[in-house]
Amino acid sequence: MKVFTVCGITQSGKTTTIENIIRELKKRRYSVGSVKEIHFEAFAIDEKGSNTDRHRRAGSELVTARGYYETDVLFPTRISIEEILRFYHQDYVVLEGVTDSNVPKIITAHTIEEIEERLDGRVFAISGRIVNEIQEYKGIPVISTIDEVTKLVDLIEEKVYEKLPEFPKECCGACGYDCIELGIKILKGEAKREDCIISQEAIELLIDDKTIPMVPFVQNILYNAVTAVVKELEGYKKGHKITVKIGEK
Amino acid sequence: MKVFTVCGITQSGKTTTIENIIRELKKRRYSVGSVKEIHFEAFAIDEKGSNTDRHRRAGSELVTARGYYETDVLFPTRISIEEILRFYHQDYVVLEGVTDSNVPKIITAHTIEEIEERLDGRVFAISGRIVNEIQEYKGIPVISTIDEVTKLVDLIEEKVYEKLPEFPKECCGACGYDCIELGIKILKGEAKREDCIISQEAIELLIDDKTIPMVPFVQNILYNAVTAVVKELEGYKKGHKITVKIGEK
Repeated sequence: MKVFTVCGITQSGKTTTIENIIRELKKRRYSVGSVKEIHFEAFAIDEKGSNTDRHRRAGSELVTARGYYETDVLFPTRISIEEILRFYHQDYVVLEGVTDSNVPKIITAHTIEEIEERLDGRVFAISGRIVNEIQEYKGIPVISTIDEVTKLVDLIEEKVYEKLPEFPKECCGACGYDCIELGIKILKGEAKREDCIISQEAIELLIDDKTIPMVPFVQNILYNAVTAVVKELEGYKKGHKITVKIGEK
Repeated sequence: MKVFTVCGITQSGKTTTIENIIRELKKRRYSVGSVKEIHFEAFAIDEKGSNTDRHRRAGSELVTARGYYETDVLFPTRISIEEILRFYHQDYVVLEGVTDSNVPKIITAHTIEEIEERLDGRVFAISGRIVNEIQEYKGIPVISTIDEVTKLVDLIEEKVYEKLPEFPKECCGACGYDCIELGIKILKGEAKREDCIISQEAIELLIDDKTIPMVPFVQNILYNAVTAVVKELEGYKKGHKITVKIGEK
């Protein structure tokens, strides 16, 4: 799943940019999901006094509203982007206003100052109202999604990679960097997405909780044996974690 | 996870009954979640023209709104109760107005006719406005949640069992019944929750750490597929615990 974020202050053209990107991605036959960060403390999607609101006030810790054409799962806490992404299995997920996820970034801005406030190694494009004033900034292309959305989505196709993990260097660092550094290197063309060893087909076998080393050949046999069965079952999602336990619950 | 449903027509006292039940369950230190079935075709939780609504209209197939204190995952389709319950890990989940799930049922009603319309072997209590008129109906206790909520929640503790699967008899039937029949037998005291062999088997499959129920036939296929490979490996011990993890180290 490829994930990127669009960041910028209110009225900088974030939502319009995202609408245009989503439409163009869909035109190219990708499946697309999105997450909107709401920077408004009093935000509540549910109506006061609705039945679901009454459930919550009575103490229900997770409330779902199921209608004829939608199902809304209302978590009563702010949950992490990593957790949120577990609900997704689209080709692309666009984050709006999300700043705490290790993903490539598009800035929308009116002014150079607004760009500067958000600029880091993860920015690969600039859009929003500033497109009327400059064509590039410090080597980063400035692209209108009104006239040039195909150009921006070409760049998304070129730059945005399969979501990287979010480990600090102490936890992994097997590629030589932490996950944020690796992301920046990939955007610069100085590393490849495949350098992340965690994403290389990971199968692990434990007997009595001890890891049994397997040569790649055996790994493949076991991997194929398990996924051949599991992928036929309801609840299976490609790329998601599978665990099979035998002999103990 | 113990799951039950409260069913009855509008204004029969469903939401009030559920609020009182949730409060009493919480008082008893249980964690509680809930699902509300919305029988109103035009229902849409999101406001027209909101940023998330604009995402959806542009083509986003799954939209999440993350605020300071809540995270709302808005699926643009009606999803099954089984799928919805995968988001839950509370002690009890109360369903409001859900009729398509294999769980014990409380009816709320004004009249005997309303009870009759909803009566089946899964009903273990009656509540709602009818409590002013009768104390029991065909052997089923009629209990007010205003004066006697502790009595109703005692009954919930006694009667409601760990959620059963939803397989038709052709797929399993290993206990001698289909899942609906077994549920009815358990409520009548003629069978036990442990009679469901799916909960006993020594093979467990998890996707993203959530258990995926498998009928015995599929359990056997997966068991054989895994052990066929694993038993050839050095380190294998018959009868010892085997764990296979795919997609994450």
